[in-house]
Amino acid sequence: MAELLVERDLRFLLYEFLDTGALAGRPRYAEQSVELWDAVLETARKLAGDRFADHNAKGDANEPVFSPDGITLIPETKAAWDAFAAAGFLSAHWDAGEGGLQMPEVVLRAAMAWFNAANVATVAYPFLTIGAANLLRAFGSPEQKRLFLAPMGDGRAAGTMALTEPGQGSALGDIKTTAVPQADGSYRLFGQKMFISGGDQNLSENIVHMVLARIKGAPAGVKGISLFLVPKRLVDDQGRPGAANDVAVAGLLHKMGWRNTTSTVLSFGDRDGAVGTLVGEAGKGLAHMFRMMNEARIGVGLFAACIAYRGYRLALDYARERRQGRLPSSKDPLSPQVPLVDHADIRRLLLAQKAFAEGGLALCLTASSWFEDQQTHPAPEGRRRAGLLLDLLTPVVKSWPAKAGCQANDMAMQVAGGAGYTRDHQLEQLYRDQRLNPIHEGAEGIHGLDLLGRKVAMADGAALKVFEEEVQTTIARVGRRDPLAPLAQQLAAALKRLLEVSGPLVALQNTDPDRALANAAVYLDAFGRVVAAWVWLRQAMVAGAGLAAGRDEAFYRGKIQAARYFFAWELPGAFPLFDLLERVDGIPLDMRDEWF
Amino acid sequence: MAELLVERDLRFLLYEFLDTGALAGRPRYAEQSVELWDAVLETARKLAGDRFADHNAKGDANEPVFSPDGITLIPETKAAWDAFAAAGFLSAHWDAGEGGLQMPEVVLRAAMAWFNAANVATVAYPFLTIGAANLLRAFGSPEQKRLFLAPMGDGRAAGTMALTEPGQGSALGDIKTTAVPQADGSYRLFGQKMFISGGDQNLSENIVHMVLARIKGAPAGVKGISLFLVPKRLVDDQGRPGAANDVAVAGLLHKMGWRNTTSTVLSFGDRDGAVGTLVGEAGKGLAHMFRMMNEARIGVGLFAACIAYRGYRLALDYARERRQGRLPSSKDPLSPQVPLVDHADIRRLLLAQKAFAEGGLALCLTASSWFEDQQTHPAPEGRRRAGLLLDLLTPVVKSWPAKAGCQANDMAMQVAGGAGYTRDHQLEQLYRDQRLNPIHEGAEGIHGLDLLGRKVAMADGAALKVFEEEVQTTIARVGRRDPLAPLAQQLAAALKRLLEVSGPLVALQNTDPDRALANAAVYLDAFGRVVAAWVWLRQAMVAGAGLAAGRDEAFYRGKIQAARYFFAWELPGAFPLFDLLERVDGIPLDMRDEWF
Repeated sequence: MAELLVERDLRFLLYEFLDTGALAGRPRYAEQSVELWDAVLETARKLAGDRFADHNAKGDANEPVFSPDGITLIPETKAAWDAFAAAGFLSAHWDAGEGGLQMPEVVLRAAMAWFNAANVATVAYPFLTIGAANLLRAFGSPEQKRLFLAPMGDGRAAGTMALTEPGQGSALGDIKTTAVPQADGSYRLFGQKMFISGGDQNLSENIVHMVLARIKGAPAGVKGISLFLVPKRLVDDQGRPGAANDVAVAGLLHKMGWRNTTSTVLSFGDRDGAVGTLVGEAGKGLAHMFRMMNEARIGVGLFAACIAYRGYRLALDYARERRQGRLPSSKDPLSPQVPLVDHADIRRLLLAQKAFAEGGLALCLTASSWFEDQQTHPAPEGRRRAGLLLDLLTPVVKSWPAKAGCQANDMAMQVAGGAGYTRDHQLEQLYRDQRLNPIHEGAEGIHGLDLLGRKVAMADGAALKVFEEEVQTTIARVGRRDPLAPLAQQLAAALKRLLEVSGPLVALQNTDPDRALANAAVYLDAFGRVVAAWVWLRQAMVAGAGLAAGRDEAFYRGKIQAARYFFAWELPGAFPLFDLLERVDGIPLDMRDEWF
Repeated sequence: MAELLVERDLRFLLYEFLDTGALAGRPRYAEQSVELWDAVLETARKLAGDRFADHNAKGDANEPVFSPDGITLIPETKAAWDAFAAAGFLSAHWDAGEGGLQMPEVVLRAAMAWFNAANVATVAYPFLTIGAANLLRAFGSPEQKRLFLAPMGDGRAAGTMALTEPGQGSALGDIKTTAVPQADGSYRLFGQKMFISGGDQNLSENIVHMVLARIKGAPAGVKGISLFLVPKRLVDDQGRPGAANDVAVAGLLHKMGWRNTTSTVLSFGDRDGAVGTLVGEAGKGLAHMFRMMNEARIGVGLFAACIAYRGYRLALDYARERRQGRLPSSKDPLSPQVPLVDHADIRRLLLAQKAFAEGGLALCLTASSWFEDQQTHPAPEGRRRAGLLLDLLTPVVKSWPAKAGCQANDMAMQVAGGAGYTRDHQLEQLYRDQRLNPIHEGAEGIHGLDLLGRKVAMADGAALKVFEEEVQTTIARVGRRDPLAPLAQQLAAALKRLLEVSGPLVALQNTDPDRALANAAVYLDAFGRVVAAWVWLRQAMVAGAGLAAGRDEAFYRGKIQAARYFFAWELPGAFPLFDLLERVDGIPLDMRDEWF
């Protein structure tokens, strides 16, 4: 069985591609070291293999059951949850003053990659808990933190994000759940939420729902939305859970994948209202929630990259073991069959998967390093630039690995053929699991609008400018005689086209926003290819240096070949997209309903 | 609930796009008419809705069960099988002398489209039976036909194609199942077959397995393969089934989709050998089997097109009913939400699906019309040309709708977002069902090799030449001032590039076949886009004529917009592929196993 991830890859990304080791020089991490981080990663690797990978298939085949007694998950899920909490991963990145280990973000996320590769459906519970706790850390009152943070850090409580409602979907401004102010300063919530992952389970004593709702009488639209903390069980003044709050599971949704993650319809206030407390400022609920949503979006990118990675390695194993047919040059039917991996088309499918999976992983960890730099970079300009890159590219970091990941898992299945299409192979589950990633945490179309309608133009285009500078810096570092020079030139050409189409599309939003944003998803797609190409060029440069140093030849050659593949086979596909964007193609926009 | 297919579309394809009405002028169909064919299609429409669509979801949720007593399917499957047989569809295309109705191939396949849109997993049984019977009709001895054809025509017997073996997969030359000659002229078969769809069931009294095996002592490779008829139950001299033959179900495979189609491992000769009789000539088994395989390949294209079509119409329904958010130009949060279909990106997803689904359906029925012409065209040259086109393009007709269909169903799910990802929506099942089509009846890679390694070069390139002439004829029919002229020019440019890369790739096969064929799957992909563009231009021309005649404006505008979409959004993607092919890109080929 393939290892969950290739450890060498993670080390390459953290310590060669990213300069994670240098974090030890920052005051916050003064007492930490690469050795410590390696130990953390080793713990994650072992735990992921022992407690998460063990029931990935079982959780898929045995969905959570909803009965009058509550939700029942297969028992391995609870064992995984407890082990994850016991190892300290729920609070590893918290400040020492909060009871955490002050672990760097990028190290935490690299650790999460192990768990993601093992079992995304079970990881969803701690993943959401980490995000909800971070939201509370950012905007909660001292009292809210006192009551709820510690249980969320040690596994007694889990967290959720409760945004979506049955009639509203992606349009968060139309949220209808109502919060009625009470005399004691608390609120009573009434309304229904849908697709709430982890909305109920039998893993933790309590669940902390982070709920978007509208204070009674608040204005329509996003300005009327506030954020509330609504626990599953009411707590005493020490945060200990007691009586059930007025939050009921109205049903479970049955998904194509991620089956071991409960997806719930939650009913708030069927009786006298679910007791909640306001988090942060009234009317700023959506802005606050973006703290958790943005983190979750990077997280979805990482889920996608890891599912793609796992599929790639399993397909590679299959292709190496399974012998079938002969090469076109071999006409002798008595000659032995060759392994699948010897066939050029299979190699193409594997190399593409490598480019997508390892590229996605590199991109997501880069984003985590920006998050890190935004918080702890010693220079204000360093923090500013990292923050702008993170803001600008969050839609890409979420969407590109998801889209490429679906392609990768599709190719993994194709490598295994009929066998891959059966439920006897893990590839089948990975294919189903992966398909959620372009949907949850904002469908692709939403991210296109976010990128082209907000991010590219924000602060007068400052973020796009920083991105351009970063890419140009990379390109400038490739010498004319460097074997990678053709790739650098191609990246320069793609960047030029991207910038050429961006300006007019931003300008057009002032006069004809419907037309300007009609092809926003295409813009996102093309932008994603440029970003992925940039990431691959940087990886290839690091690999080139490794080769020059005479180390690990096969490993570095593989990286360079994957980069070459991406530039020769995937980046060119961006140019027809730029053409569509340049002429602001209106064919879909002009299609009329009655013509369908 | 959306109708299974839009009837107007089928009529457009049969009677406007294809000149099916003219078939009535051919001697074979002298006693038939459009009215008769319409009645046949109406029967199919009704039967598909009543007896196939009714249990599509139920069959998915309740897989066939394998027990010592045999296989059990949900009872609706048997009702569907019986109704299909009773309506005469199993033998509708047979000669009158065989007991058939002499229905034209293209009418039969158009009828099958109704069933495919309803429930591919149940259709698989009659589909395979029709194919196996056709194989028997083509190569069976009078005695074999006397015993088995009638039951296969009235539903007492079903048919299968038994090619694949556990250790061999796509490499048919490595088949190991052995046939031992007996004194009475029959054979005893020993071996194991895998992924045999319909290999057992409880629908019919008997099953006729068409089995590839190697007569004991036959040479290695494809030249040693022969075709055998092996019934599940031995028959008496009137063809009535009696004792069980030595064919055992060794297990069922559990697929991601098509769950109501049994996928079996069959064991031949666990006891004293499965009794079989040779079909056609010894050593020509594979050539004979290609009769059924080619028919099945067109059939897989049609499955794919119909699954895509069904998903498209369901997604369209959803997008029309579901209101969500507002257009970018609308800033008032109190304004009502608009239907999803009003959003430009949703419209793009729907228009792309329309282009893929309706393009695929048009392509598959075109292929059926070539099959028809190959048999019944009055002119020898007409028969020759149709035969060449069919031969050349079978890999495309199988692969392009499958690939585009996966994209279409992916987009259908995206339109419905989280709802589409749940098993409460049919889109989820369609997504899983569709994924088989790029795998079964030859994986994409196999068809790439078939197209570039055999078909393009066969008969000194005669087939490619005929294809070129047909496309040029279409282009020449578009006047310079025709609104479709830009599309015709673009098609001419794409055809030129296709032909430019084809010659060198064929030539290179003589000296370096491994390199020449390394990108055969890319060649197939690019070729498919050109063929689909051709089909769309022809549909747009017919629609333009309809518009000019002042009929059905919305319908024809939709066809033209889908054509415009395809040319603006999909065909341009072929050009980067041509670039790869032109320089015979070797990046995947040169990747080494140890670099992964």
